[in-house]
Amino acid sequence: MRTITRDLLQHVGERVEVEGWLHKKRLMGGLNFLVLRDRAGLVQILDHEGKEADKLNGLQNGTVMKVSGTVVADERAVGGVEIHQPQIEVVVPVSEPMPIEIDKPLSHKSENLDTLFDNRPIALRNLREAAIFRVQAKTLTAFRDYFAKHDFTEINSPKLLAEATEGGAETFKLDYFGKTATLAQSAQFYKQMMVGVFERVFETNPTYRAEPSATTRHMTEYITVDAEMGFIGFDDLLNFVGGGLVHVANYISQHCAEELKAWQVEEYVLPKDGADIPRLTITQIHEMFRDATGEDHTEEDDLAPAEEKWICEYAKKELKSEAVFVTGWSSKSKTFKFYHRANAENPELADRADLLFRGVEITTLSMRENRYDVLVEQLRKNGGDPESAGYAPLLSAYKHGMPPHGGFGWGLERTVEKLLGLNNIKEAALFPRDMQRLAP
Amino acid sequence: MRTITRDLLQHVGERVEVEGWLHKKRLMGGLNFLVLRDRAGLVQILDHEGKEADKLNGLQNGTVMKVSGTVVADERAVGGVEIHQPQIEVVVPVSEPMPIEIDKPLSHKSENLDTLFDNRPIALRNLREAAIFRVQAKTLTAFRDYFAKHDFTEINSPKLLAEATEGGAETFKLDYFGKTATLAQSAQFYKQMMVGVFERVFETNPTYRAEPSATTRHMTEYITVDAEMGFIGFDDLLNFVGGGLVHVANYISQHCAEELKAWQVEEYVLPKDGADIPRLTITQIHEMFRDATGEDHTEEDDLAPAEEKWICEYAKKELKSEAVFVTGWSSKSKTFKFYHRANAENPELADRADLLFRGVEITTLSMRENRYDVLVEQLRKNGGDPESAGYAPLLSAYKHGMPPHGGFGWGLERTVEKLLGLNNIKEAALFPRDMQRLAP
Repeated sequence: MRTITRDLLQHVGERVEVEGWLHKKRLMGGLNFLVLRDRAGLVQILDHEGKEADKLNGLQNGTVMKVSGTVVADERAVGGVEIHQPQIEVVVPVSEPMPIEIDKPLSHKSENLDTLFDNRPIALRNLREAAIFRVQAKTLTAFRDYFAKHDFTEINSPKLLAEATEGGAETFKLDYFGKTATLAQSAQFYKQMMVGVFERVFETNPTYRAEPSATTRHMTEYITVDAEMGFIGFDDLLNFVGGGLVHVANYISQHCAEELKAWQVEEYVLPKDGADIPRLTITQIHEMFRDATGEDHTEEDDLAPAEEKWICEYAKKELKSEAVFVTGWSSKSKTFKFYHRANAENPELADRADLLFRGVEITTLSMRENRYDVLVEQLRKNGGDPESAGYAPLLSAYKHGMPPHGGFGWGLERTVEKLLGLNNIKEAALFPRDMQRLAP
Repeated sequence: MRTITRDLLQHVGERVEVEGWLHKKRLMGGLNFLVLRDRAGLVQILDHEGKEADKLNGLQNGTVMKVSGTVVADERAVGGVEIHQPQIEVVVPVSEPMPIEIDKPLSHKSENLDTLFDNRPIALRNLREAAIFRVQAKTLTAFRDYFAKHDFTEINSPKLLAEATEGGAETFKLDYFGKTATLAQSAQFYKQMMVGVFERVFETNPTYRAEPSATTRHMTEYITVDAEMGFIGFDDLLNFVGGGLVHVANYISQHCAEELKAWQVEEYVLPKDGADIPRLTITQIHEMFRDATGEDHTEEDDLAPAEEKWICEYAKKELKSEAVFVTGWSSKSKTFKFYHRANAENPELADRADLLFRGVEITTLSMRENRYDVLVEQLRKNGGDPESAGYAPLLSAYKHGMPPHGGFGWGLERTVEKLLGLNNIKEAALFPRDMQRLAP
């Protein structure tokens, strides 16, 4: 029966059987070291005589093998054990060398990323690379866990739509039995409709943007953690989102210790309670940044990237939080969408915030206008046609009663990028897609 | 502070505040009954005087309201309580009647399905309709739970591909910055590549088929629960899939009692251990069916729908299982894909099975050929070109060592359909998509 490397420490002194891939070998006649990789990690195999290791002569890393041997405790070894006196069975011999070496850290310098992505199916066999996607998987689990605790229902909205509703220019179009369909740019309308059914819904879903730009922050396909909740106010929404970040960061700290170590991630600096994440207005940040650096952005209605970075560093040092809510967004700017809600007391402002974490925006949250008449008016002002078929389902939900509600779309890859201290969103996508890249 | 209807029983005798939608009203002067719906269910509000209920005069179901009142235990009422002496605040008045009545069961007769789907955003406010998607969400949770218990890693593979690799005819094509891209018909190659990384992977992902057929079993977009595992044999795979069905059915029985009641679902008849789900060959089923009905399909290399139905009913009665594994598939037929594995002892047969549940196939599982040379040979025989760019990533994973592995793609909507005893897969899709339907 097979033993997984993770469990070897429980079998010291016993003979076990492990299965996996040859990850590394050093054959030196009298002293032969092999490293075997399985889904749980690595184990070193020591063959003093070398007769068994000879079976791997001419074979390359990647060779699939079954090894039985005695588990010997050794503090210096990975996992605290080695396997001695091995018997080796080659299951699948591999004769071709790998296109990249996977037994040492792979370069993530921007000029090397294409090589990394071109060789992704093999590069991911490097433990530090795979760690990124273990963290991605655990981040999804952490989000779902948080939603379940707060009584959300998971939904699956369609990605094939009759027509683009938001920002048609950046929409992919496809031939649909002779008609034209578009790929969903967001689950926005669907999650709002579903507030009328389940009040609180979430979806972790692929999102498509025909973004004609090649940056470190954009992809054409990515995963959004979408959520929407009814019968809440703006403050509830801020508290919920703040709590979400704290929950995810704690969950990753607890469940991904090894992965964080592989990426030398420093402990997350966040308040215990997400409600205590600092909330600053754009104007405040503009002024603080100007006073600190002399650089003046006070006339702009968005933050400059340098300001986002600076405020997170400032808050980490001075406010014990490397996350900051940016509030005070204008309801008169282009970023105010027709379904956003203006603040009741100060209609010049939107009930909207961005959550910055470690220097970048990871989610935008906003309250939605829930009154049918006001929504239709805002849609018209925005240049939309309330009679167009694309809006009909959303408007029908509004017509038959929508409570005050709000929500957010949270970028999974960008969050993982920041949780691990990576520099490019694509490093956190299993098989990234951009203008140039459609493979592997 | 708001109380959710689910929690009212804990507040008998107290005054509480509930928020939700007007679901039903009977105003009869002296005795006014209102029903309020929130995310957790319904509660009846009794206004003896009628002065408060008068606030709803002229308003329709869907009206959003806040009601404070005294919780009174009443065994006859839904949830065991009523709210008396209410004070009502109308939050969002609704003046237009709903396009369909949501306070009684909606027809699922095939001739009424289009009306149901056209009005989905509103129809889902009917509790029995919403129950379908609560079961869908819990089914996903049950699958994830099962995968987590078995040490799987969740992946997110891309849906935008450079070219179709399997069955190009049924692939949606889209304009991708002047090039042509296709929508993924399955995560097959990606999950196989990822076996080389994590051994055991799963993904719950939208799947796209340009299926030009209008049946009760097909949609153009649906959710597949995809999984793949390495270092296993065919028997392991059968046990794992059987265990999965038993786990999901138990989970739904435990967590969705109310939803199952709404759909009058009979208790699932399955063995305790998924490994005990009966395994019958196609030939055996052909013969059993012929002997029982006189209808002869013994010359066919697939089961007829009538046979699938019959064998599940037979097994339910005689073998205490309404699920059956169908084995004995030919390795010479068109259904044998290039990545399938022929049986080592009898190469005429494939290491493949279908899992039937309540009369239909809910998943196909198979071992994959894991030897590079044999895979390439099978690909060529199948008419594929191993030099084509679409196969390069998969072949690179094979070239550098793939262990024996197998997996399955499990249709989420079809499973929910059968768990609830529905008749059309589209009833189990939140916003179904087919040749004709791209909205809402």
